[in-house]
Amino acid sequence: MSLLFKNAKIISTENDCFKVLENAYLGVNGKFIDYIGTEKPAIEYSETVDMYNKLLMPGLVNGHTHTAMNLLKGIGSNLSLQDWLHLIWPIEDKMREQDLKTGMDMAILEMLAGGTVSFSDMYMAPWFTQQSVGQSGIKANMTRVVIGGDKDTDYLTYPNRLQSLAFHKDYDGAYEDRLHVDFSIHGEYTIADSVSLKWAEEIQKIGGRFHTHLSETKKEHMDCIERRGITPAAWLEKAGFFNLHSYAAHCVWVSEEDMQILKNKKVTVVHNPTSNMKLGSGFAQIPHMLKMGINVALGTDGSASNNNLNMFEEMHLASVIPNGFTCNPTLMTPSQVLKMATVNGALAQGRPDTGSLEVGKKADIIALNLDAPHMVPDHDTLALITYSAQASDVCMTMVDGRVLYKDGQFLTMDREKIFYEFRKSHEYLSSNC
Amino acid sequence: MSLLFKNAKIISTENDCFKVLENAYLGVNGKFIDYIGTEKPAIEYSETVDMYNKLLMPGLVNGHTHTAMNLLKGIGSNLSLQDWLHLIWPIEDKMREQDLKTGMDMAILEMLAGGTVSFSDMYMAPWFTQQSVGQSGIKANMTRVVIGGDKDTDYLTYPNRLQSLAFHKDYDGAYEDRLHVDFSIHGEYTIADSVSLKWAEEIQKIGGRFHTHLSETKKEHMDCIERRGITPAAWLEKAGFFNLHSYAAHCVWVSEEDMQILKNKKVTVVHNPTSNMKLGSGFAQIPHMLKMGINVALGTDGSASNNNLNMFEEMHLASVIPNGFTCNPTLMTPSQVLKMATVNGALAQGRPDTGSLEVGKKADIIALNLDAPHMVPDHDTLALITYSAQASDVCMTMVDGRVLYKDGQFLTMDREKIFYEFRKSHEYLSSNC
Repeated sequence: MSLLFKNAKIISTENDCFKVLENAYLGVNGKFIDYIGTEKPAIEYSETVDMYNKLLMPGLVNGHTHTAMNLLKGIGSNLSLQDWLHLIWPIEDKMREQDLKTGMDMAILEMLAGGTVSFSDMYMAPWFTQQSVGQSGIKANMTRVVIGGDKDTDYLTYPNRLQSLAFHKDYDGAYEDRLHVDFSIHGEYTIADSVSLKWAEEIQKIGGRFHTHLSETKKEHMDCIERRGITPAAWLEKAGFFNLHSYAAHCVWVSEEDMQILKNKKVTVVHNPTSNMKLGSGFAQIPHMLKMGINVALGTDGSASNNNLNMFEEMHLASVIPNGFTCNPTLMTPSQVLKMATVNGALAQGRPDTGSLEVGKKADIIALNLDAPHMVPDHDTLALITYSAQASDVCMTMVDGRVLYKDGQFLTMDREKIFYEFRKSHEYLSSNC
Repeated sequence: MSLLFKNAKIISTENDCFKVLENAYLGVNGKFIDYIGTEKPAIEYSETVDMYNKLLMPGLVNGHTHTAMNLLKGIGSNLSLQDWLHLIWPIEDKMREQDLKTGMDMAILEMLAGGTVSFSDMYMAPWFTQQSVGQSGIKANMTRVVIGGDKDTDYLTYPNRLQSLAFHKDYDGAYEDRLHVDFSIHGEYTIADSVSLKWAEEIQKIGGRFHTHLSETKKEHMDCIERRGITPAAWLEKAGFFNLHSYAAHCVWVSEEDMQILKNKKVTVVHNPTSNMKLGSGFAQIPHMLKMGINVALGTDGSASNNNLNMFEEMHLASVIPNGFTCNPTLMTPSQVLKMATVNGALAQGRPDTGSLEVGKKADIIALNLDAPHMVPDHDTLALITYSAQASDVCMTMVDGRVLYKDGQFLTMDREKIFYEFRKSHEYLSSNC
């Protein structure tokens, strides 16, 4: 199966830089991009699609989320983080595997419709919810969050450990490598040393990727310094976690020395601007991190603290907030923000074969309609994407060369069934919590 | 002509508080709302529309914009304000009346599709662009911006003055009061005293409303103190401008004393969060102003510094930024933000008969689809609107009881013709600037 897009505006990548092509062609052969150019390719394709007044760009990578939490969207808005967690935790305890799966199904609908082709998820029961990744055709890095324990915990039989190991063994690389299974700890402050230190040792032996929360709030950061005499980043490094291919969400309160650790250990920072603003966590020093050469990706966090999974909103906030905080309008460029939302996230996921439109890369591509009133004129296409575009401008989402969403239709998922199951889960949780 | 909406979720207002009704009815008779309730009304309506899975809420009021600037969208992204103005001004000088009108037509398409029922515009040639307001059915407060001059300017023949006076005389209250004509100065720092002081005196005699920019940047605020020994707000008060019904855009750098002036003189502050962030102007102390009892409205500013006219994005930013800046997640409530985007803006426009869904008020109503993946579940309807919803969820926009937009269709405007004219204007400006 081969497919040629013609007449498209294309955000291609050459030598790590975006290049905008007009009236251009993009060829897809199987899972891969095999042609990009303004000349008609010499080879024949089995299908040709006219993309007049449409833009092809790399699909978005949501670098940090808790997808099934969209069942909890809107609960406890405007509470402090502590009050909110005490409201949320008892409800999470009631969530059954089927609720988590329907939550993830609904999240995948939202993500595909909004141009997300891959996401990094940290939550419960991924061995069950991974079915949604398999069925939908989306890509995901999933992890069974490792959390809790106390000084008397028996490490060897600790359920989070056993579940993580089994999930990794059974599913890493599943669905032709669309599913990556990563290791994790929720964060430095939510896990007992009796678990975490041995866990760091064990997963270093296995190898793979590591996902964590890091210095999201000032309290969490300062408490660690008070308790351990070092920062959370320094503790994670010392424990050995950062010897894996690591990505850390938030990093709002990391120190200059912490940033040096993140850079040296090649840890990706996943910026979650809406969540950091909404929960009052604060402003992450993203422009400074980018200047240092740290790989920065972009994420939505869970829908319970956002309250949606809209990567265009995150690009919007990531673009404007640093300027507002520092009174410097020249800090963030559309090119930097678009890389954060695409190729930087793909690198964090251990997917160097995607995140940009280049010949030889996987065909993880989205199309945007350019004929909406807010999308004209186009004086600067990258600025148009990061400042003006909406998730609703996405009219096609393709993963590994396969169209999963087009013009409001989901081609691999049963929208009505998912809404039905979601409503059942919502009713169950509403009457039991 | 009368119309009954049934089966709707409705954000009504009772005693200045929002109240969410489920499976409710809303009746429209002519221009007015004549029924809201969960019981079927006794009277008959000529038409009934089923709003199952849809939300009716007050239409949005864009409190500060320069609509025709969407022709300049994306020019000079990431320049400093001074560099950007020097790029923009020569292009603005080339804009013909027909370019300004097609810019406004396109802006109105975008606003209607995104749920805006009324906007406050400050720009050039409003006597020409007002046609778009007449044709489209939207509401607007427009002003011919008064700007410039020097110590030798002859006040009586100053064109901005003459144009403003004529525009006010000819059009204030036009189109059955959909068009309000306001007076203005661009700002304290962009007008000569030879014009401004006499202008303040003259418009106080005429009466009406007054629109200005105020303390948008630190430089503008501090320069005024250095030059005059008082702040811009104190100067505007002293000159007498605030004796009119006034609204002031931005107010990022106003002092505590300035806020007291704004409160005493009942000046509405129009918050423009995206523009203030993007241009690096800074963070306006909105929660503090609200606590003081200042009327705060919400605006997009022009598309050239935003880069769109999306009031849902502004609600999103207005909701989360104060929390992020102050590390306090309990500062802004969805109810406050929704009032800023609706009734507070209507008050600034001198339209006490709109901005909320109440019997006897004008039927300025929008409908949102509730069946998108990002709109479920609904644990808190006001939070759903301010945090989760998108402009693209708007499926109907009604002004004065007349449907202007429905399911992607514009009922009063010729979309194709406007795109055609817009492209011609874009090509003219591109080849002449």
